[in-house]
Amino acid sequence: MKVICGGIELREAASKVFKACAVRSTNPMLECIKLEAKGGIFKLTATDLELGIEKSVPASTPIEGEVVVTGTFFKDFVSKLSYEQIELSVSDNVLRISYGESDGKLMTMPSADFPQIRGVSKEQHFVVQKKDLRDLVNKVAFSAGTDDYRPILKGVLIEIEEGGAAAIALDGYRLAKCERPIVSTTAKMHAIVPARSLKEIASILDGEDEPIIVYVQKNYLMVDLGHTKITTRLLDGDFVNYKNIIPTSFETTTIVPKSPFADGLERAKLLSRNDRNSMVRFDIKDKCLTISSTSELGNLNENIIINATGKDMSIAFNANYLTDILKNIDTDTVTLNYINSTSPVVVTPTTTAEDLLYLVLPVRLV
Amino acid sequence: MKVICGGIELREAASKVFKACAVRSTNPMLECIKLEAKGGIFKLTATDLELGIEKSVPASTPIEGEVVVTGTFFKDFVSKLSYEQIELSVSDNVLRISYGESDGKLMTMPSADFPQIRGVSKEQHFVVQKKDLRDLVNKVAFSAGTDDYRPILKGVLIEIEEGGAAAIALDGYRLAKCERPIVSTTAKMHAIVPARSLKEIASILDGEDEPIIVYVQKNYLMVDLGHTKITTRLLDGDFVNYKNIIPTSFETTTIVPKSPFADGLERAKLLSRNDRNSMVRFDIKDKCLTISSTSELGNLNENIIINATGKDMSIAFNANYLTDILKNIDTDTVTLNYINSTSPVVVTPTTTAEDLLYLVLPVRLV
Repeated sequence: MKVICGGIELREAASKVFKACAVRSTNPMLECIKLEAKGGIFKLTATDLELGIEKSVPASTPIEGEVVVTGTFFKDFVSKLSYEQIELSVSDNVLRISYGESDGKLMTMPSADFPQIRGVSKEQHFVVQKKDLRDLVNKVAFSAGTDDYRPILKGVLIEIEEGGAAAIALDGYRLAKCERPIVSTTAKMHAIVPARSLKEIASILDGEDEPIIVYVQKNYLMVDLGHTKITTRLLDGDFVNYKNIIPTSFETTTIVPKSPFADGLERAKLLSRNDRNSMVRFDIKDKCLTISSTSELGNLNENIIINATGKDMSIAFNANYLTDILKNIDTDTVTLNYINSTSPVVVTPTTTAEDLLYLVLPVRLV
Repeated sequence: MKVICGGIELREAASKVFKACAVRSTNPMLECIKLEAKGGIFKLTATDLELGIEKSVPASTPIEGEVVVTGTFFKDFVSKLSYEQIELSVSDNVLRISYGESDGKLMTMPSADFPQIRGVSKEQHFVVQKKDLRDLVNKVAFSAGTDDYRPILKGVLIEIEEGGAAAIALDGYRLAKCERPIVSTTAKMHAIVPARSLKEIASILDGEDEPIIVYVQKNYLMVDLGHTKITTRLLDGDFVNYKNIIPTSFETTTIVPKSPFADGLERAKLLSRNDRNSMVRFDIKDKCLTISSTSELGNLNENIIINATGKDMSIAFNANYLTDILKNIDTDTVTLNYINSTSPVVVTPTTTAEDLLYLVLPVRLV
């Protein structure tokens, strides 16, 4: 193999592809990056068998070939190269990276052992604006589960219908649901995508807003950006029937100004940070929300003037779940709907409640 | 005690004073901040018995008094207050912090147990520009020792003579020396100041460049900025006679362009990062410096065209010591002076060598 390509392009490709490298694996190939030179294209590939990322860089490829190198080291090394033009060549299983007057030599591994990324059929697909796909991911993926004992909750359910997409994630204590328009779809479909894969996909979808195609088949999903292809395995199984979980009638509704709400929660968390549940108490009475927290250091009462209808209410929450939600709400006020002190609260932006909904289980009042 | 003061001023004072709080101490008072209201001044104080910081904030003080609170919590709490005006009052050993419609209550401790910061005599002192004092600290303090077995090396030696100051730090493997002019001094003097105290002093010396007074007595040093007083205990004992360590005649002199030198070392460190010594090898021959490093992953040769006089040289270093030094050199080229492969190298900025000097011991070539 012999390739000559641009330093900036190589650095960017290595850092993107590296996101799919396994951190610590019994199969060393999963920590590697495959380099392929063919027909004027230098292609970098990495996969941990769940997520796979391929990125192509225009290059001169006088000798075609392929080789596998350690992911961390290759990525760190090219990220420190500020040279315009870099030459990579292989002889005797050693990759020589030449730049300016200098060179580095890396041990390589045979590419035959590198796992192949499954091709995804292009038959079923939907088209969505980059920004809408980013929102679907970023506004819900943080609510997905992290425990291995219910692996299906480590996924985000994506539901596609004519004209719209919904993303849902839940972990047993909280739920997040976001809806966004889509440009088109070949059919109604749904997929349970590992939250980690989705986050990496969203982080790669930078740059200008434009429609992109997402291909879906039974066990795989692929985003094809031309120079970059991201493939992820889907989770197998039935997702929780989330529609039954979301209550629709309430005893108390409050409209709370977001900024003092977020600030008050941040202060209240300081006192509850040694408590496993980060418990803060809410008392709603006389158009006032009092957030209180207490510890051996002292106690705190945050009083916020709100718009409230319905019964007075006392309820307690894990403050972290609420501050996570507020980071994803862009409106000036948030609406909280309560049933009683043991039932989940529903949190939505006040003016765009149809697009975004969060649900949080209370903790027991002590 | 009852005090009304500005929120921004209180936040800034708490975060500065907190730098002198002990992180974990058998004496809980050393993790606290003392609050004192008296004659229109609200004064915050913290000390870990080595470093002491006092900061005064203009305030209305209707009820004078003093109280002690937990440092971490008080600092974090006021840093999250965005209110213009804050009222602090004490009753029954509880500090009430009121802001807007809300309040927090903190447990307090009696101020009688809080250690007093020693007053420093104003007789002996020197005057120096803020920027020069910052340079004296920042360009040498990183070379001070961190081991407890030679505590004197945890200090920086400050030598004051008519017209100039020198700061020297060393840890047994490297040495740093910086010289700067001073405005005036009452006498020749020297002090061994804990490096950690000096770094905190330098970090507080922000804002405009202006002359400041540094008071020195037998065991203490104090910087008085009016609203802020920083006092540090000095280290007792004899500093290493550093002048005997710095060689003055050399076999080889090289002038190396700084930017490719720093970049090459960063790449070479990638290969030596699993080696305890971060060893990189230098070969100087035919006006070329070759930096090489090697590991089981591969090897690297960085060739840099340099200006060299004297004998060819092969020598090895801990790359981290050299990259630390290069961060503190502002000139385009650095001068390295060598004797042989087992003697220390002297590194200086090429054009301002009289102000700043570093010395690094080589590691054994393998």
